Amino acid sequence: MQKPAAEVEVVRVAEGLRRAQRDRVAAEEPLEIRVSGDTLAITMRTPGHDRELALGFLFAEGLIGGAADVASITHCGRLGDEGFGNTVEVTPAPGVRVDPDAHGARRGTLVTAACGVCGRRSIDALLRVRGAAPEGEVVPVPVALEAVAAMRAHQRLFGETGGCHGASLFTAAGEHVATFEDVGRHNAVDKLVGAMLLRGAVPLAGKLLAVSGRAGFDIVQKAHAAGVTAVASVSAPSSLAVALAERAGLGLAGFVRGRALTVYAHPERFGA
Amino acid sequence: MQKPAAEVEVVRVAEGLRRAQRDRVAAEEPLEIRVSGDTLAITMRTPGHDRELALGFLFAEGLIGGAADVASITHCGRLGDEGFGNTVEVTPAPGVRVDPDAHGARRGTLVTAACGVCGRRSIDALLRVRGAAPEGEVVPVPVALEAVAAMRAHQRLFGETGGCHGASLFTAAGEHVATFEDVGRHNAVDKLVGAMLLRGAVPLAGKLLAVSGRAGFDIVQKAHAAGVTAVASVSAPSSLAVALAERAGLGLAGFVRGRALTVYAHPERFGA
Repeated sequence: MQKPAAEVEVVRVAEGLRRAQRDRVAAEEPLEIRVSGDTLAITMRTPGHDRELALGFLFAEGLIGGAADVASITHCGRLGDEGFGNTVEVTPAPGVRVDPDAHGARRGTLVTAACGVCGRRSIDALLRVRGAAPEGEVVPVPVALEAVAAMRAHQRLFGETGGCHGASLFTAAGEHVATFEDVGRHNAVDKLVGAMLLRGAVPLAGKLLAVSGRAGFDIVQKAHAAGVTAVASVSAPSSLAVALAERAGLGLAGFVRGRALTVYAHPERFGA
Repeated sequence: MQKPAAEVEVVRVAEGLRRAQRDRVAAEEPLEIRVSGDTLAITMRTPGHDRELALGFLFAEGLIGGAADVASITHCGRLGDEGFGNTVEVTPAPGVRVDPDAHGARRGTLVTAACGVCGRRSIDALLRVRGAAPEGEVVPVPVALEAVAAMRAHQRLFGETGGCHGASLFTAAGEHVATFEDVGRHNAVDKLVGAMLLRGAVPLAGKLLAVSGRAGFDIVQKAHAAGVTAVASVSAPSSLAVALAERAGLGLAGFVRGRALTVYAHPERFGA
């Protein structure tokens, strides 16, 4: 089985002096996600929580409505085989059809809308919302500030390697629900949402999603699909992330550092 | 035409005080890359240097051998149309065939090798090298340290938005060659390599590629394809990035900060 971190021989050069030592780096390996035998996607990810990753990915893409749509997610091959663990097979629940070509979710829409026409229509498709988060849900600013600071303590792999992203879920009262890590920001969020799907906790109304890196469009899209109330990023959002959060009724804060943050969408989602 | 940054209304919350203000965020929009009318890829990118991005992407994927294989790269549609600029059409040079399905490059190999078997074989395919960088080429450690520090001054969009990645090229003597920025690390590198292809400067022997974020597998793969001597990252590499750099004869340094760095592959590429 693969591990989330790998040990490597390095040479540390500081102030002109060289010293051979050992270091740990975040593991990155391809994961092939198959549905009923067909390859749906290949993503570079940090091994571990592959089941959650596959589930969260399918959900964000609009291919499943929840964990009940899936009968099983198993690693292909035999334990002990070289490279065992880099392919998962998703078997839909009886009567459920998972059809990447026919579904109306992001990927399909994007490719279709972008094919015949230029630009604007594909962005409109990207920004299509599933239904805005319920009004009245609020995450207090002090909770958002503390959540992002607390996330760091839960990023064990980052602590070891300094080289992977984290995604954490908190309640509006500031309770830590879960943290997942991955070399890919989007994978960390997929793992988190997948884990919540397995707990039957989605939609994540009233919850805050904290992410260690930038808030790109994909992060906000996944947060919206999972129904969180607000997203707090250590770094900056992109223009498309702001536009989607605006349209979806999602609170979006960036540069959440120390005792300050910047709200890019729906300031009313961040209470006093 | 789209711009690389967008102005947005924000609410800055600091020490409990709220203030409405204007801020700038890095633009993120989809770019559809078409070859001879067929969609090859859709990537979320920061508008600008789309020609370089498409060229660098095709090159990294092994679909073209250089700029001479391409007759033209043009934006589809008409200037002034809404969303004009989010699709580029690549027309191969006369006699050149660009075939995503038949080519032996990374994507094709990955999908094919990963389909029938689990794990290890797909990683081996990923790590396949095109031919190692020539021996004897070296980037002095002080140049690598200064390059990463100097890159920051060239990241204009980052200075404006705090939210995008940079990729810079330097000579072994420390001269700055070019810097490109994008919300995606991989796009920034594709733009840089594309620009060098247009200048007829590839392979980039003796050059250092500096990147602002982590050094994932994709960054090292693109660096290897372009023939640079060494990669210097502000942050950490992944396990697969280290493995590929090791196999490709590429120097790979991470945590290049202040007066220190860590060499993860081929320390002999970093001279005194």
